[in-house]
Amino acid sequence: MLAARYYGKEDVRIVNDIQRPKCGAGQVKVEPAFVGICGTDLHEFMGGPNFSPTSPHPITKEAIPITIGHEFSGTIKELGSGLEHSGLKIGQRLAVQPTIYCAQCGACSVGAENACLNGGFIGLSGGGGGISEEVVVPAEACLPLPDNVGLDIGALVEPLAVAWHAVDASPIAEIKEPKCVVFGGGPIGLAVVQVLRARGAKLIICVEVAKRRQEFASEFGADHVLDPTKHDVVSTALELCGGMHPPDLAFDCAGVPQSLETACKVIRSRGTVVNVAIWEHAISFNPNWLVFREANYKAVLGYQRKDFKGVIEALGEGKIKPAKMITSRIQMDKLVDDGYWALIKEKDKHVKILVDVKAGVSDPASIVKST
Amino acid sequence: MLAARYYGKEDVRIVNDIQRPKCGAGQVKVEPAFVGICGTDLHEFMGGPNFSPTSPHPITKEAIPITIGHEFSGTIKELGSGLEHSGLKIGQRLAVQPTIYCAQCGACSVGAENACLNGGFIGLSGGGGGISEEVVVPAEACLPLPDNVGLDIGALVEPLAVAWHAVDASPIAEIKEPKCVVFGGGPIGLAVVQVLRARGAKLIICVEVAKRRQEFASEFGADHVLDPTKHDVVSTALELCGGMHPPDLAFDCAGVPQSLETACKVIRSRGTVVNVAIWEHAISFNPNWLVFREANYKAVLGYQRKDFKGVIEALGEGKIKPAKMITSRIQMDKLVDDGYWALIKEKDKHVKILVDVKAGVSDPASIVKST
Repeated sequence: MLAARYYGKEDVRIVNDIQRPKCGAGQVKVEPAFVGICGTDLHEFMGGPNFSPTSPHPITKEAIPITIGHEFSGTIKELGSGLEHSGLKIGQRLAVQPTIYCAQCGACSVGAENACLNGGFIGLSGGGGGISEEVVVPAEACLPLPDNVGLDIGALVEPLAVAWHAVDASPIAEIKEPKCVVFGGGPIGLAVVQVLRARGAKLIICVEVAKRRQEFASEFGADHVLDPTKHDVVSTALELCGGMHPPDLAFDCAGVPQSLETACKVIRSRGTVVNVAIWEHAISFNPNWLVFREANYKAVLGYQRKDFKGVIEALGEGKIKPAKMITSRIQMDKLVDDGYWALIKEKDKHVKILVDVKAGVSDPASIVKST
Repeated sequence: MLAARYYGKEDVRIVNDIQRPKCGAGQVKVEPAFVGICGTDLHEFMGGPNFSPTSPHPITKEAIPITIGHEFSGTIKELGSGLEHSGLKIGQRLAVQPTIYCAQCGACSVGAENACLNGGFIGLSGGGGGISEEVVVPAEACLPLPDNVGLDIGALVEPLAVAWHAVDASPIAEIKEPKCVVFGGGPIGLAVVQVLRARGAKLIICVEVAKRRQEFASEFGADHVLDPTKHDVVSTALELCGGMHPPDLAFDCAGVPQSLETACKVIRSRGTVVNVAIWEHAISFNPNWLVFREANYKAVLGYQRKDFKGVIEALGEGKIKPAKMITSRIQMDKLVDDGYWALIKEKDKHVKILVDVKAGVSDPASIVKST
């Protein structure tokens, strides 16, 4: 079958000689529809393999080359045995939660399978991927979409679930009229803005440098957008909060030294900074930024089934309307040129580029043999 | 009256021409008994004024010279008007909570008066201090001691309350058989060890370099003491926890780059690092240390009335037995030589040096005029 495979740095190939996966007991064969391109995909393409296994992954037993695509929607093509009462049906439309976990390690045993010590993702760590004609996943990875949620939107559930998980981990539910600052207006920052809106935030301030992203932040529900090169974020945010009570929560989706320091300084006493970013290296940090306001710094990672469910419910109820996040749709063989390179060269223009898997390839000559 | 006054760096004087304070409505005149010397006192003496006000403090309106001593016990000498039904009585023995706060700022308004933006401490910020014949404090600062708790132990309530506050801010109550690592075996680290023991910790590991402090940690209840120059703390702690489930909580009472990094790496997924230290400068930090275990970094500061109450109750019930923390008792005029310099030069030998205020001065010639 046709699939996009990652071989290593700047080496992604479209191949058509990959064996179709078999659907075992408790498994579901999914026909992928739309696949979002994620920052991790870009990192792997530009500078990897970092995340992709170069020796057999402890769970999938696979190493590169591997099929890619972990943000995806699709329809059920086949059900493995034992799923008669699962509620899943052939033809059903769904989003796939691509989490791979061992269910045995120290993290899994405290219910943090999203931080599994042996974990990974379908579409990054082996186990197939979204940019292929078929993929077999565990039944519990399948989250049906409501009728009013399209398959294209279904591919946005994964990045929105990252945001949902981050907001859910914050003490937002305990705060009356929560005031929030979101650092970074990239796909995850914009997802956090939307989830905060859906979760009843009273005030949302987004901090972003790039002009087009500032516009996106407003479109997705930020009440105010601050350019940190033009505004003193700490004093301006305090003013926007009425001058006396600083923001309750800050979400760092930028992951740069300035965002961390400003996030720590912008919040109120006993406020919380949620770090959503993955960092590239150590930075300069003074714990006193937190000490003198007795604040919390909370790290989050990925998502769990509850977050996928939360997002899908909010999409069904129209509380999150993320369609404008899709800034381009491409065919599989355009993945590198119109996907990766577009996201790198026209970073600010795009939020999310989707691969339309069913549209196949635009040029049959783009297909190569897998070995 | 007689008092020890801080004038500036390496300039502390014993004077006897300070006016006795007047006891106003809602205030209590206390005759200090014992006063502990704290790390902050040392910092001010060696390198201050940092904390001590050089211009009028927003609440006390005082600037240096100021009377010192904020960790103290005493007896009630006089009650101001309006305290007939307060339960306080002349002659009553008590610990004083030295917190000064404005009750109006952003911090106070969210119940974090311990992080008051205008705050300070009796004995550091004006408003009198413990090393004097008399001090007038608000009635709510007075916490009576049970009959079985001596006035010397009463002077240890303040540092123990710092530890109580830190443990109370951690999620210890939600954890079954909590396993904890305490970084640093100084006065606060040892106080945290004792409070953890009193609060039902299942396993306490203390990480400390100095030999005498390692012994103290064992004496005060640490199950294991690790020298980080001799052990890999992360792997040894995991082993001591049975090899599968790392410690739940880490308390950083050392405040050095190595303790922060190791604290972040020693805890389990979704574990919590509580920072009890005050830092001198920014350090190198990689948020990923927390990200991949989805962990929390929680800063705490000082204490609140509930913490003083918790400590005093635990002392009364014999759940904390801190008498061995007192490694020396000195007279007021020995404060610099046998107090500050002893703590600096014989750092590892001492935990807490108390000034016995009622013992007066050993040498009348040590007394100078205040101006």
